[in-house]
Amino acid sequence: MAAPVDPRTGLPVVAMVGGGQLARMTHQAAVALGQSLRVLATDPGESAALVAADVRLGDHRSLDDLRAVAAGATVLTFDHEHVPTEHLRALEAEGHRVAPGPGALVHAQDKLVLRRALAGAGEPQPAWVEARTVHEVTAFADEVGWPVVLKTPRGGYDGKGVFVVDGPDEVADLLEQYGTLLTEERVGMVRELSAQVARSPFGQVAVWPVVETVQRDGVCAEVLAPAPGLDDSLATAAQELAVRIADRLGVVGMLAVELFQTGDGVLVNELAMRPHNSGHWTIEGARTSQFEQHLRAVLDYPLGSTAMTAPVAVMANVLGGAAAAEGWAGPPLDERVHHLMAHWPDVKLHWYGKGQRPGRKLGHITALGTDPVEVRARAVAAARYLADGVVDEAFAFDHDAVAEH
Amino acid sequence: MAAPVDPRTGLPVVAMVGGGQLARMTHQAAVALGQSLRVLATDPGESAALVAADVRLGDHRSLDDLRAVAAGATVLTFDHEHVPTEHLRALEAEGHRVAPGPGALVHAQDKLVLRRALAGAGEPQPAWVEARTVHEVTAFADEVGWPVVLKTPRGGYDGKGVFVVDGPDEVADLLEQYGTLLTEERVGMVRELSAQVARSPFGQVAVWPVVETVQRDGVCAEVLAPAPGLDDSLATAAQELAVRIADRLGVVGMLAVELFQTGDGVLVNELAMRPHNSGHWTIEGARTSQFEQHLRAVLDYPLGSTAMTAPVAVMANVLGGAAAAEGWAGPPLDERVHHLMAHWPDVKLHWYGKGQRPGRKLGHITALGTDPVEVRARAVAAARYLADGVVDEAFAFDHDAVAEH
Repeated sequence: MAAPVDPRTGLPVVAMVGGGQLARMTHQAAVALGQSLRVLATDPGESAALVAADVRLGDHRSLDDLRAVAAGATVLTFDHEHVPTEHLRALEAEGHRVAPGPGALVHAQDKLVLRRALAGAGEPQPAWVEARTVHEVTAFADEVGWPVVLKTPRGGYDGKGVFVVDGPDEVADLLEQYGTLLTEERVGMVRELSAQVARSPFGQVAVWPVVETVQRDGVCAEVLAPAPGLDDSLATAAQELAVRIADRLGVVGMLAVELFQTGDGVLVNELAMRPHNSGHWTIEGARTSQFEQHLRAVLDYPLGSTAMTAPVAVMANVLGGAAAAEGWAGPPLDERVHHLMAHWPDVKLHWYGKGQRPGRKLGHITALGTDPVEVRARAVAAARYLADGVVDEAFAFDHDAVAEH
Repeated sequence: MAAPVDPRTGLPVVAMVGGGQLARMTHQAAVALGQSLRVLATDPGESAALVAADVRLGDHRSLDDLRAVAAGATVLTFDHEHVPTEHLRALEAEGHRVAPGPGALVHAQDKLVLRRALAGAGEPQPAWVEARTVHEVTAFADEVGWPVVLKTPRGGYDGKGVFVVDGPDEVADLLEQYGTLLTEERVGMVRELSAQVARSPFGQVAVWPVVETVQRDGVCAEVLAPAPGLDDSLATAAQELAVRIADRLGVVGMLAVELFQTGDGVLVNELAMRPHNSGHWTIEGARTSQFEQHLRAVLDYPLGSTAMTAPVAVMANVLGGAAAAEGWAGPPLDERVHHLMAHWPDVKLHWYGKGQRPGRKLGHITALGTDPVEVRARAVAAARYLADGVVDEAFAFDHDAVAEH
């Protein structure tokens, strides 16, 4: 209990590296706990920088900037995974608390490190190989079959840095451009799932229901909580897997385990050690949101209840659409918000305050209810309308198409 | 739609006069809507000033300070009722939107103005008289019986400015000290209720379930939603009364109508035209919180659903207790928060970041569930523990005593 607190309130100060929407929503949760999130942003126009009281401008690759934001903070945590491991080790050596610690975080930063750790632990994952040469890729593909998936070990997100390769032709170019590539079998999957868990330094863990994540063009479009029709035993197995990984890696804070559901179980795709898009539904859909839980966990507070507040919650991302394109002549954002509220008085809007670009995550909509098909249709229609401002498409949203998914 | 918006986001800017906990919680709601609340605070240590990005320091009695905070804002609104009417009229004359407008707000500022308006509208209220002389008070008391209640028309809150007088002896002193006093019969009431409604300039209204407010020493201690055992027809009558008052006075934003429940109906006690302590439960307990709804209403956005998220919600204020007294040697605040979270993983904490003084509203706890007695016991025990840091009292909280209320 000797860690620094805010002298004005007697309560902790959490510093977060990164000023995106995850920091923005974490600040909202911090306010309820009597805190004010300290944010390291690169630009005063970033999502969290627009709304937080304690914003420091700086670069997450600069050890000096990291030192400045960590000074006087109770603990340093992250809205993204891009802080160099050696900087985090330096901060720890200087006495700062870092959560998750660098030894855990590297498994969310480097897909090869993760694959090795899961192999060592005997956890289920796609067949993989670390490939530096075309021969290593083709030898692997001869075993598992084409196509195979090449991934840059670091820096990929939202489908970037991931290449599905049908044959050996493109491999040489990719290896030349990126160097070593993680090479994986292309999994014949039923769907993607996410198992979220929070873990505190004390070792307490809390798990939410396993959700289905629906990707479009490599970007998360919808999250369905709980995952519709998921077998109880498989749901429990996925939760236990997430807890084992959190324990083994010593994760502190939120951990999202992204999973492929196959015909006979689940395989680990990748990890995120921070609040994650697959948990935005928890703001309204669970008794404790992932953002509050992340704060509790990194502060070693006891964790909150993860019970759902309704039988079904669906989150739909608002991805920059027609309205974000140049030359678009539809209603401006504020007018779209008016129409959204008029038509869907019971969905919850979260808008991140970011500049609008096609495909960018601009906000999300959460809907709650009892019928998975109706709740999903409502969330998706509202999100599409807000993205595109096109009334007839959104209002004529096809319930049957959703039901067939 | 010609009102100013934030050029960085294309969304409105709401400016709020006052930096207390109501502004703090309104900022949290603003963030979800893509906004950042602009706050006029008198001190950088105020609740909202600790967490909001756009804080202006100034005095709500200074027209210049009000002009500065209103400049470039879409609309100006309030976390308290202390802004002089003439300043608001001046701002309106200069083209600023003010919500609620001064003509409505005065009914929450001046109890005599309210009594006259309700009398003109034929709405139910206690018998009352405007008294400048001892004779006027005693003549009134001869009619309605002693004791009578003397109230300063302006500036009272949390029981301050309210005097229950058993006979004529003390009346002369009070009149000399305060001048004109609103003099009311002492109502033989069953309990106190609150009916909350939001109204937009368009004229849309939204009502929440009527709640019971439990006062201790003139300060709100607990709010029970919905009011336990309240007859449906009386609940509807109270909601209709609140809507009529909002319409007649042209309220824009939140209106709380504080009511006395008597043997045969309800009487209007007083009004608040802002988010109100009796509506804090709506953050988790209703689909749309009073804070989000206040923003929607003052911006003339369509209003959100007021449906409850659980059958029962109870809010318990954390009032500065033993821990706020000098010389107290119990656990510090951060440690009390730890214990709170460990013992009650499913209650929601809202801590305002204010300095601790005995009797001061420092935060609140909300509990949700199905059994009114259990939910109330849980909320009250958690709030008492946080206030006092006394474990055995809180943990041995007497369920029967609550049930008997």
